[in-house]
Amino acid sequence: MAVHAVLVTALDRPGLLHGLTRVFADHGANITSLEIHPTQGDSAISFEFTPGAEPAGEVVADLRAVEGVTSVLEIPTFANIYGKRIIVMGGGAQVGFVAMGAISEADRHNIRGERISIDTIPLVGEQALAAAVRAVVRLPRVKLLVLAGSIMGGEITTAVWEVRKNGLFVISLNMAGSVPEAADLVVSDPVQAGGMAVMAVAGTAKFDLMRQLKRKY
Amino acid sequence: MAVHAVLVTALDRPGLLHGLTRVFADHGANITSLEIHPTQGDSAISFEFTPGAEPAGEVVADLRAVEGVTSVLEIPTFANIYGKRIIVMGGGAQVGFVAMGAISEADRHNIRGERISIDTIPLVGEQALAAAVRAVVRLPRVKLLVLAGSIMGGEITTAVWEVRKNGLFVISLNMAGSVPEAADLVVSDPVQAGGMAVMAVAGTAKFDLMRQLKRKY
Repeated sequence: MAVHAVLVTALDRPGLLHGLTRVFADHGANITSLEIHPTQGDSAISFEFTPGAEPAGEVVADLRAVEGVTSVLEIPTFANIYGKRIIVMGGGAQVGFVAMGAISEADRHNIRGERISIDTIPLVGEQALAAAVRAVVRLPRVKLLVLAGSIMGGEITTAVWEVRKNGLFVISLNMAGSVPEAADLVVSDPVQAGGMAVMAVAGTAKFDLMRQLKRKY
Repeated sequence: MAVHAVLVTALDRPGLLHGLTRVFADHGANITSLEIHPTQGDSAISFEFTPGAEPAGEVVADLRAVEGVTSVLEIPTFANIYGKRIIVMGGGAQVGFVAMGAISEADRHNIRGERISIDTIPLVGEQALAAAVRAVVRLPRVKLLVLAGSIMGGEITTAVWEVRKNGLFVISLNMAGSVPEAADLVVSDPVQAGGMAVMAVAGTAKFDLMRQLKRKY
């Protein structure tokens, strides 16, 4: 279903958000994400939603009628602007090269109308990495995770099994530790791993990750 | 004020979100962000919020009492896991090298307890880039934008002036077009631009971007 996005500006008052969500509920519209933007004095809140049976325009009109609302602008969705996300995490040296490969490949697809973002965080430590892996499934629009490092195992491996059960694809560099065993695909060259990650999620590519499962390159 | 995060699982029903936001409103708690996670059957919604006068535990207890809610878990906030974000956008070749510099530098700070993510999107075209620049201020936790390319101007420059008025720092590579004139700082070497971007937002660094404003390197 088509996702719509609106930016609502309003005088800041208690219960404002509760009043705004009532409009979506009344129209059977599903809010899929919401962000509150820090401003001076006023409140600025962006909503992404899928309309119910009634058109999105009716939701917008009723939002304008909520007490304190000063403006409601229809805006592009994050999916239209930043698109699908690939997350790369691990040691700085490896994350950098995976990012380089993925950015070069995403450039080639985005030119043809795709929208793929490459988001990265250099992180060390079993607990920090396991927490970051688990949190990936709570980030919006993430399609694939690349684990880039020299050794990863233990709690990180458990987290990889968990997020794969939630439908996330995971590519691991060939490295020491048990993470490669838990991943969908294992790749030795970090630049190639980045390129394959993009090809796996691009609608403009013919690479089918599902056919490569458990292969090692 | 301390931000708390909870993951609420509930039976999917109309008006669920409206019922949940009532709990935050009743306790004077401010929701700062919210994400709906795609699941089969159930609804999973994560909230980040700052409590009002009452402790966060009371909000959690009352969320558990909402009709249809099956579990409420306290979880780490995205700020604790992924931290401050630097966004790099523009041509793939330059974005890759800025990312490389920024990831290497962020690695050194994250090891000392910082949390800095480097998020990138290779994009071409005046309209696509201007829209992406404008949308950056709607993304959570973004501290700085790096524009990396060979020529940028027109509507992109207008967008840079707009987001700087909203408090975002902008570093531009030295390039053709009017974007460098609109940026806070202009840097010729993309790897150095990435490093400076990280130093500018890191609490663990001594580099003060405010003292470098309008300098060219």
